[in-house]
Amino acid sequence: MNIAIIGAGKFGQALARLLDKYLPEVSYALFDREERTGVSSNLEDIRRFEWIIPAVPISAFAVVLKQIAPFLRPGSTVVDVCTVKEYPAQKMKEVLPETVQLVASHPLFGPETLERRDYRLNGLPFVIWPVRIADAAYQKLKEGLKKTGLNVLELPPEEHDRLMARSQFITLLTGNLLNRLNLNPTPIDTYSFSTLLEVCAVTGDDFEILRDVYRFNSQSRELLREFEKAATEVLKELKGKKSSPKD
Amino acid sequence: MNIAIIGAGKFGQALARLLDKYLPEVSYALFDREERTGVSSNLEDIRRFEWIIPAVPISAFAVVLKQIAPFLRPGSTVVDVCTVKEYPAQKMKEVLPETVQLVASHPLFGPETLERRDYRLNGLPFVIWPVRIADAAYQKLKEGLKKTGLNVLELPPEEHDRLMARSQFITLLTGNLLNRLNLNPTPIDTYSFSTLLEVCAVTGDDFEILRDVYRFNSQSRELLREFEKAATEVLKELKGKKSSPKD
Repeated sequence: MNIAIIGAGKFGQALARLLDKYLPEVSYALFDREERTGVSSNLEDIRRFEWIIPAVPISAFAVVLKQIAPFLRPGSTVVDVCTVKEYPAQKMKEVLPETVQLVASHPLFGPETLERRDYRLNGLPFVIWPVRIADAAYQKLKEGLKKTGLNVLELPPEEHDRLMARSQFITLLTGNLLNRLNLNPTPIDTYSFSTLLEVCAVTGDDFEILRDVYRFNSQSRELLREFEKAATEVLKELKGKKSSPKD
Repeated sequence: MNIAIIGAGKFGQALARLLDKYLPEVSYALFDREERTGVSSNLEDIRRFEWIIPAVPISAFAVVLKQIAPFLRPGSTVVDVCTVKEYPAQKMKEVLPETVQLVASHPLFGPETLERRDYRLNGLPFVIWPVRIADAAYQKLKEGLKKTGLNVLELPPEEHDRLMARSQFITLLTGNLLNRLNLNPTPIDTYSFSTLLEVCAVTGDDFEILRDVYRFNSQSRELLREFEKAATEVLKELKGKKSSPKD
C-alpha cells in the first residue's frame, strides 16, 4: 500500500506527519507544483500509487483533478479531504475516470488543532462517504480509520454541508471578523473572553478558507444572510437606545 | 460585621450564596423593591448595616444610590459591583454623603460561571479600587478578598473600562449576535465551533447587560465602530469574490 498526497501546503504536510505516526510502514510521497526537498512536481509518478489524497484549496480542486486524471492507475482510490463535501464529490464523479474509486472525506480538524494535541487523532471527528467504491474496500478503509481512534461518521455530502454551514462557516466568519480587531489578553479577562480568544486563535486569520467555505458550500449563503440580519439588529438596538445614562 | 445586598436579582442572590459559603459567620440581608420571603423592601433598615453592596443593573444604579443615601450610617462602606467602573465611581462620589466610605469593585464573573464551578472563587479575577476609604479599612478588605482565593487586581476605573471595552464588550456583543442564530451542537462539531458555543452559553442572550456596557462604558463606542467596520469589510470581501467555482 502506498499513498500520494497532492499539495504540500500546511494540510498536506500535517497529513504526512500523521502517516509517519500512524502508518510508519506505508510509503507515501508529497506532490506540489514546485519541486523541492521531499516534494515532487512530477505528476506522472502518481501512476505508482494506490491511494491519492488531493490536499489543495477547494478553489484549486477541480483544476488539480484534471491534472492528475490522466495518470491515475485503474483500481486506485482518490480520497478528497475538502472542508465542504457536495462540490468535491460532484467534481470527482465528473472529472475522474470510471476505473478509479472515489471516497469523500472531511477530517474535522486542521493543522493548528493537530499541533496543539501533538498529532493525536483520538476522539477527533472524521466524516466519510463512499462516492464510488467497492464495499469491501470501503469497509476496510473505515476500519483502518477507526483504529487510529478517530470518531468516524458517515454522512451524505448534502447533510454534511448543511450542518457545516451552521457551525464551521459561522465560526470561521466570526473568527475572521474578530481577528481584524487585534484583540489581546488583558490582566482581567473574563472566562468568556478567554474562550473567545481561543476561537480566534484556532480559526486564525486565513481569509481564503472562509471564502472557500462560502463559495463552495451553497448553504453558507443563507447563514451569511442570517448573520448580517442579526448584526444589523444588534447594532440598531444598541444605538437606538438613548445613549446618556438616567440620572 | 454585617452586609446589606441591595437588589435580589441573579447577581444579588449569587452574592448571598458566596457569603453563605465564605463568610458563614457574617449576617447579611437582601433588599429589593418588592417584599418577599428572605427579601426586605424596607430601605430604612439599611441603617443597621456596615457594608452595603448595590447589586442592581447599571441603568438603575444612580436611582438606587439616591434611594439609599438617606439611610446610610456614617462610617459604613458602599461597595459597588458594576461591570463598568468610571460611571459608578463618579456617581457614588456625587450622590452619597461624605460620611460614607466608597469602594469600586468588579467581580469578573457572573452567576453562570459561579454555577458551573460550584461557587468556588479560587483564581477568579476581581478588580478593586479605593474611591474614598481609610487606608487601613481598604487594606483589610483587600486581604479578606485575597483569602477567598480571588485574584484581586487594583485598577483605576478608567483603565478598567478601557480594557473591558476591548474584551468584555466585544464578547457580549458577539455572544448576543450569535445567540440570535439559534446555533446548536451537531454530530460533527469542530473544536473551534464547540468553543464558540461555549462563549454563546456563558454570555447568554441577556441584551440588557450588553446595552448597559455599551451605554455606561464610554470606550465601548469606539469598539462598536471597529466591529461594524470589520463586519462590513468581511461581508464585502465575501460577497465581492466571484461566487461561482473555477471550473
